[in-house]
Amino acid sequence: MSKGFFITVEGGEGAGKTTVLDQIEHQLKQDGRDVIRTREPGGIRIAEQIRTVILDVNHTEMDSRTEALLYAAARRQHLVEKVIPALNEGKIVLCDRFIDSSLAYQGYARKIGFNEVKEINEFAIEGHLPDLTLFFDVDPVIGMSRINADYNREVNRLDQEKLEFHERVREGYSKVMTVYRDRIIKIDANQPIELVFTAAMNVINQFVESRTL
Amino acid sequence: MSKGFFITVEGGEGAGKTTVLDQIEHQLKQDGRDVIRTREPGGIRIAEQIRTVILDVNHTEMDSRTEALLYAAARRQHLVEKVIPALNEGKIVLCDRFIDSSLAYQGYARKIGFNEVKEINEFAIEGHLPDLTLFFDVDPVIGMSRINADYNREVNRLDQEKLEFHERVREGYSKVMTVYRDRIIKIDANQPIELVFTAAMNVINQFVESRTL
Ligand SMILES: Nc1ncnc2c1ncn2[C@@H]1O[C@H](COP(=O)(O)OP(=O)(O)O)[C@@H](O)[C@H]1O
Ligand SMILES: Nc1ncnc2c1ncn2[C@@H]1O[C@H](COP(=O)(O)OP(=O)(O)O)[C@@H](O)[C@H]1O
Ligand SMILES: [Mg+2]
Ligand SMILES: [Mg+2]
Repeated sequence: MSKGFFITVEGGEGAGKTTVLDQIEHQLKQDGRDVIRTREPGGIRIAEQIRTVILDVNHTEMDSRTEALLYAAARRQHLVEKVIPALNEGKIVLCDRFIDSSLAYQGYARKIGFNEVKEINEFAIEGHLPDLTLFFDVDPVIGMSRINADYNREVNRLDQEKLEFHERVREGYSKVMTVYRDRIIKIDANQPIELVFTAAMNVINQFVESRTL
Repeated sequence: MSKGFFITVEGGEGAGKTTVLDQIEHQLKQDGRDVIRTREPGGIRIAEQIRTVILDVNHTEMDSRTEALLYAAARRQHLVEKVIPALNEGKIVLCDRFIDSSLAYQGYARKIGFNEVKEINEFAIEGHLPDLTLFFDVDPVIGMSRINADYNREVNRLDQEKLEFHERVREGYSKVMTVYRDRIIKIDANQPIELVFTAAMNVINQFVESRTL
């Protein structure tokens, strides 16, 4: 039996990842594909416990490198326990965020260092990069106003520091794209959601068909 | 005020690390040195929580790379919260095991890969290698018979698999010594404990004096 496909969706807050993944999952199932949808820590016990340590509200003293190592550890366990077994059963695995989020957020926007964060994540994934990654590229002003669900408020009322951080995340994703150019397809996520979905679906269908000939 | 000294002690089980560190700590204090003694996770809350995840007896499914990342995360936090502040106060920090244990045990003996484990640990310690490391080199047959505290039993009754593992750990430490030859001093830990202590104490005194002239 053929190995499945590992597809990840990336992008800033409010890019539409979760919403469009719902639609993609639904469509692929309607088309008779064997799909599983996941995100880290994905119900994997060890990974959930690691997330609990990361998200402990009392952990104001957590160092950013400690945090990056913990994310990499949770990623590893989710990959080994859930993603790889599904791929070995020939499934299409749709994952909401993966290695590129760490590179863009922690490596670049949080300034730990892109190559440093890449190294520990490559240790964690041991060559299991996604087969295909959709980068939903959104203007942070648009993404954040979607999240805030207050479409009327003035852009200049958005927290300026947050906005700068999300601009850095977006730049981080551009950097990621130059490093992994064969695997990542950029999708304009500023468009109406139907167009984002159609663009994403076309890329996935083309990819899956090209690999199953 | 001058920065302190970061001194680690390494070696297999039963090499005498804990016992001799007790004596070294006592002697240095008698000599009027400002010393702190520690070991990972060293009472650091986040590091203790990470250890709890690692040591959870139900975690038979934990992947060895997940474990290595968790050890590196706990090491990072212990270093940042406890070791570095003490060094900045000019103290001598005596630490029972550090990066070289991960290299010998996980990188080499558990076969994850020496360079791979080195990379994630160098991410974790960010250049804060020990100033001096004492490698207590013991024959595993001797070390294990000390641990088992059954000095009369036959060597050939020792679990052969365990013995092979500890032989690999010892080889791993030899490999570590070739990589970090300036920092690590080997001490023959097969000797009577008074001689191990004297040898260790001489190395430390020489080192500290050479750096405080
Ligand atoms: N292209 C789009 N146009 C308008 N609204 C969108 C678009 N994409 C997402 N949204 C809305 O923005 C909000 C955040 O979307 P979500 O899918 O949760 O984003 P993400 O998972 O990328 O953070 C939701 O209310 C969603 O309906
Ligand atoms: N050089 C030695 N000769 C004889 N017994 C020793 C020696 N070093 C340690 N021991 C004994 O071996 C046991 C294990 O020593 P310990 O200091 O706990 O080793 P480690 O911390 O390296 O595992 C203790 O009972 C200790 O007294
Ligand atoms: Mg989402
Ligand atoms: Mg000990």
